Amino acid sequence: MSKPGLDELCINTIRFLAVDAVQQANSGHPGAPLGIASMAYVLWDRFLKHNPKDPKWPDRDRFILSCGHASALLYALLHLTGYDLSLDDLKQFRQWGSKTPGHPEYGTVPGLEVTTGPLGQGFANGVGMAMAERWLAANYNRPGHEIINHHTYAIVSDGDLEEGISAEAASLAGNLRLGKLIYLYDDNGISIEGRTDITFTEDVAQRFQAYGWQVIGPIDGFDTAGVEGAIRKAQADRERPSLIICRTIIGYGSPNKAGTASAHGEPLGVEEVLLTKKQLGWDYTEPFTVPPEALQHLREAQERGQKQQGEWQKRLKAYRQAYPAEALRLEEDLRGDLPAGWDTGLDDLFRGETKPVATRSASGLVLNSLAPRIRSLVGGSADLAPSTKTGLKDGGDYISSDYSGRNLHFGVREHAMGAVASGMALHGGLIPYTGTFLVFYDYMRPPVRLAAMMGLRVIYIFSHDSVGVGEDGPTHQPIEQLVGLRSVPNLVTIRPADATETVEAWQTALQRRDGPTALVLSRQNLPVLDRKTLSPASGVRRGGYILWEAAANPEVIIMGTGSEVHIALDAGKLLQARGIKARIVSLPSWELFEAQPAEYREKVLPEGIKARISIEAGSPLGWERYVGDSGVTIGIPRFGASAPGKVIYEKLGLTAEHVAAEAEKLRRGGRK
Amino acid sequence: MSKPGLDELCINTIRFLAVDAVQQANSGHPGAPLGIASMAYVLWDRFLKHNPKDPKWPDRDRFILSCGHASALLYALLHLTGYDLSLDDLKQFRQWGSKTPGHPEYGTVPGLEVTTGPLGQGFANGVGMAMAERWLAANYNRPGHEIINHHTYAIVSDGDLEEGISAEAASLAGNLRLGKLIYLYDDNGISIEGRTDITFTEDVAQRFQAYGWQVIGPIDGFDTAGVEGAIRKAQADRERPSLIICRTIIGYGSPNKAGTASAHGEPLGVEEVLLTKKQLGWDYTEPFTVPPEALQHLREAQERGQKQQGEWQKRLKAYRQAYPAEALRLEEDLRGDLPAGWDTGLDDLFRGETKPVATRSASGLVLNSLAPRIRSLVGGSADLAPSTKTGLKDGGDYISSDYSGRNLHFGVREHAMGAVASGMALHGGLIPYTGTFLVFYDYMRPPVRLAAMMGLRVIYIFSHDSVGVGEDGPTHQPIEQLVGLRSVPNLVTIRPADATETVEAWQTALQRRDGPTALVLSRQNLPVLDRKTLSPASGVRRGGYILWEAAANPEVIIMGTGSEVHIALDAGKLLQARGIKARIVSLPSWELFEAQPAEYREKVLPEGIKARISIEAGSPLGWERYVGDSGVTIGIPRFGASAPGKVIYEKLGLTAEHVAAEAEKLRRGGRK
Repeated sequence: MSKPGLDELCINTIRFLAVDAVQQANSGHPGAPLGIASMAYVLWDRFLKHNPKDPKWPDRDRFILSCGHASALLYALLHLTGYDLSLDDLKQFRQWGSKTPGHPEYGTVPGLEVTTGPLGQGFANGVGMAMAERWLAANYNRPGHEIINHHTYAIVSDGDLEEGISAEAASLAGNLRLGKLIYLYDDNGISIEGRTDITFTEDVAQRFQAYGWQVIGPIDGFDTAGVEGAIRKAQADRERPSLIICRTIIGYGSPNKAGTASAHGEPLGVEEVLLTKKQLGWDYTEPFTVPPEALQHLREAQERGQKQQGEWQKRLKAYRQAYPAEALRLEEDLRGDLPAGWDTGLDDLFRGETKPVATRSASGLVLNSLAPRIRSLVGGSADLAPSTKTGLKDGGDYISSDYSGRNLHFGVREHAMGAVASGMALHGGLIPYTGTFLVFYDYMRPPVRLAAMMGLRVIYIFSHDSVGVGEDGPTHQPIEQLVGLRSVPNLVTIRPADATETVEAWQTALQRRDGPTALVLSRQNLPVLDRKTLSPASGVRRGGYILWEAAANPEVIIMGTGSEVHIALDAGKLLQARGIKARIVSLPSWELFEAQPAEYREKVLPEGIKARISIEAGSPLGWERYVGDSGVTIGIPRFGASAPGKVIYEKLGLTAEHVAAEAEKLRRGGRK
Repeated sequence: MSKPGLDELCINTIRFLAVDAVQQANSGHPGAPLGIASMAYVLWDRFLKHNPKDPKWPDRDRFILSCGHASALLYALLHLTGYDLSLDDLKQFRQWGSKTPGHPEYGTVPGLEVTTGPLGQGFANGVGMAMAERWLAANYNRPGHEIINHHTYAIVSDGDLEEGISAEAASLAGNLRLGKLIYLYDDNGISIEGRTDITFTEDVAQRFQAYGWQVIGPIDGFDTAGVEGAIRKAQADRERPSLIICRTIIGYGSPNKAGTASAHGEPLGVEEVLLTKKQLGWDYTEPFTVPPEALQHLREAQERGQKQQGEWQKRLKAYRQAYPAEALRLEEDLRGDLPAGWDTGLDDLFRGETKPVATRSASGLVLNSLAPRIRSLVGGSADLAPSTKTGLKDGGDYISSDYSGRNLHFGVREHAMGAVASGMALHGGLIPYTGTFLVFYDYMRPPVRLAAMMGLRVIYIFSHDSVGVGEDGPTHQPIEQLVGLRSVPNLVTIRPADATETVEAWQTALQRRDGPTALVLSRQNLPVLDRKTLSPASGVRRGGYILWEAAANPEVIIMGTGSEVHIALDAGKLLQARGIKARIVSLPSWELFEAQPAEYREKVLPEGIKARISIEAGSPLGWERYVGDSGVTIGIPRFGASAPGKVIYEKLGLTAEHVAAEAEKLRRGGRK
């Protein structure tokens, strides 16, 4: 055990590495690190199970700094406990290409579990991690063999708790009785506009009790023994997630800034840094000083971690012997590999299908065909499973009395759903998917963005993808959501034209390991395209492909996605009857298409053919890229309307006749 | 007073008008109307202060059906109490062009206060309405003259309470002690995926008590006397908003569907409708039957409303005599008119300014210049006022002890902020604005969409609008948010290039009365464009304009928005020195530009000039529209990075030199 004096030395070392990094960058947030270093130190020194020499050890505890603006604190901890992060890296805080960006970025440095900064996200990510832990434990642990058994910790701030996403996630965590989720709340009473009580006077303890959490405190966040006791108490309650309310002072130790908003988002200033060091009894005026005793003590984390992981490896060995099949499966899942034969028979799923099928229904069938083989496929919907067709028939429900279920019930909580899925993907061992209506993508944009930024394998199922929704009207009809998805870097969006393209879309999504995929699906039934007379659906893998053409040298190209492809095809046939040769291009994924070699893209959309029409039941924004200066976009540059879907399609001109008429105009050169 | 038998008759009339409308449309939600008709009837019959003959009477109570899927209930109430909505309109439920769309749509029918459907939004809109009421009362009422004094009521559902936005809004309402906000919670225990307890087991009463609400119940939602007593109790507490928990049964009365999820989102079916009618003692098998006694009783709302409004008008008359200046102002504000001389002197604000100014700072100066004249301009930020520059220096704070303040403190609650602003605009009498970083637009997309759909005058201030944010890194750097704003129908987005364009942007936003406007502003300082040598900033009003050109017949057009316009201008000068004639186009608002006559657009971007370059520090998606097949887009098709802003601009090629080099290539024809 460490002496009190040593504790304080270590805490100050953490504090001033953070403060010096901010000062060196002349940019950043010194207030939070000064306030929460004690809590963080106690957690990392006395509790956190991790191995700096193997940051990806699957059974490590997870730590989330939900208040990501305190990043410098995390970098200090990672450096001091022996992760691959040097003092020089800390000196490069917030500089181009450094391992120490302004907010924690997943992938930049080992040991950093999740990108945080946008408030509330980390809070909800942690719930996903804790859910993943319980799921793996329920599915893989065996009597006497605890292979998966760890905690998820986070430090969360006022801002995290004010955001609605944390309310959603906390309610879900309470419902699921995630007893191994332990959050330390940095209750410092200060926000950017001043004292939090100008707007945040709710009784946080009572609120979390209402969610079904154990609430501990308020305690003094600077009292290391108190924090230690609180965490022990949190660990002891295996039935409820715990919130430890830690009273702290933002900018603690700064004579002129402590306890004020000005300590939050700007460097203290060289002089104030010196004054703060003096006030906290830190004798080293030289920036980035690490006293050897502090380093030695904090680096004990390495030995401790090696030992803990060594014991775990022994347990894993015994497990392998007792349950070789399970062990193989677990290791495969933890690697994220798809099992051999995972997609056997998929291609036959809709062969010869002559009845129309909604792509949401096709997706449900694919999912249920895949589920028995891909055990790690786990997901659910924001209270729309019957509509989004996201339920796994034999999957069981993931509920507090049985964590082995594969059907997650997120409730009407899209925002938390997105972040929980990210947390699961970050944890590893399972492939999460979510489900809601496309229009409600708007409720979960922040976690989708972060998943794309982190490069996580998450699959988003968005059904009811257009005015084809019909009578529910404009509030439920997406218009701008498709272009929204396409605008997110590193997100692949696929809007399949029919059941056969839906099969390909799912295969593509599952094989994508470096980022999320959105599947955009119809509510309404769509004809299953007859692949005997049309190109194979495997063209989906290339993002876009020639589906059909009347003759080898077409005069006009009609392109579309999803539920409008069969309309385009009908238009092509109409034109053929009128002696006009059209090519129909199905373009389900812009991102995949743009990743193709230029020659392939030129083959599909040859520069020489200027007469081009796009049709898509959404905002036409962006289609100019493909139709070009001489082309025509047919889309919906307005909100939708409440009426039967077919009526809306007719009223808004999303018909084969309209497409054909525009094509004829283009061919006559009547339109520029 | 009505007899109990009459009450039940009226309630059943409401129920079956709704159920018959759903059945006639063969689409819709019968379950909620059956469950909540009693609560709604008691509220409308005994409490709601409204005048069906003057639906816009400013001091009416506001009623929100937050569970908008129960729309048929609202239409039944509007018809029965005498609004301009016929029985034939009800028969057109969910049909193209009808006054009775699937979810309530603001503007389709008098008396309908707000578009609802996306869950949680109505809950938060109501908070905005109640805040507006208190603000107007604080600013205009005088001793003995209560001109503004009404309640805001809503019926809210499980789904509303599960959404994070309601947590944000409820916490805010509790903090602000909005005692005249009264919500009836339809606690029916059923959600689409089944019983709510699969995911929603929180103690709602305790949670709302934690927010500072008065919680009443649970009571029996079918007990009219109980509901009446609860609403009286809610009204009696002037210090706390009230949540009345009403236990109900979804699909009440349906022998085979009551209390199940299957009653929620599909018609009961002809037979089940008959069975339900029988079970509830409704003798009329003919659909859309309105018994004369029920109609007569419910139509008493007209006389009652006329009388109430008559009394109010007497009070207004007395107020006019006692406070003529205030009365004139109030009436002007309620009409939404800007006062005479509202923009006097604005154009001089930055005349001759030679120091660079961030457009967020320019916006703050404009706002503070306008504020003394436009009294109704009220707004704030999601805990970022010092950064977004949205504070009104002499505006005072809107807090529970003083509702006259003009600075709103939303807390870290962007989602509620958006919906609260909509509620204020819907209430009328003030012009709301909000503030946050552009990247956090993602947290508030749903209310922005709905404000655009409703055509509300709300002004969104989005600062920190690009990688120019710098060190905070990709989590805080918008990329896809600009194209996101542009994709929303009926939203006008303006990204001014400098302080002088910011003035024009604000003027445009304030003069727009049929929809919201987003102002997209830089964190970093930008040179104030020298209007002595450049075209006047008034070009902003047309969305795009020729800022400068080297000569009358330019060879290349360089266009950009916001912080990239001065880079484009520098590139133009570089090219001039190299003997290449460039035109620089500032294109701050695509929507305004596209609303211009074709001749104007052709003048700015003549078809003959094919060498075109766009530069914007965001996703290039959509710029193809303006640069055309031969053009080049310079943008950021990736996430940003943590580094000083200038470094990022250089690394990502957002420099005058890069633009000039691309222009030279284009001119040499080296690029297609």
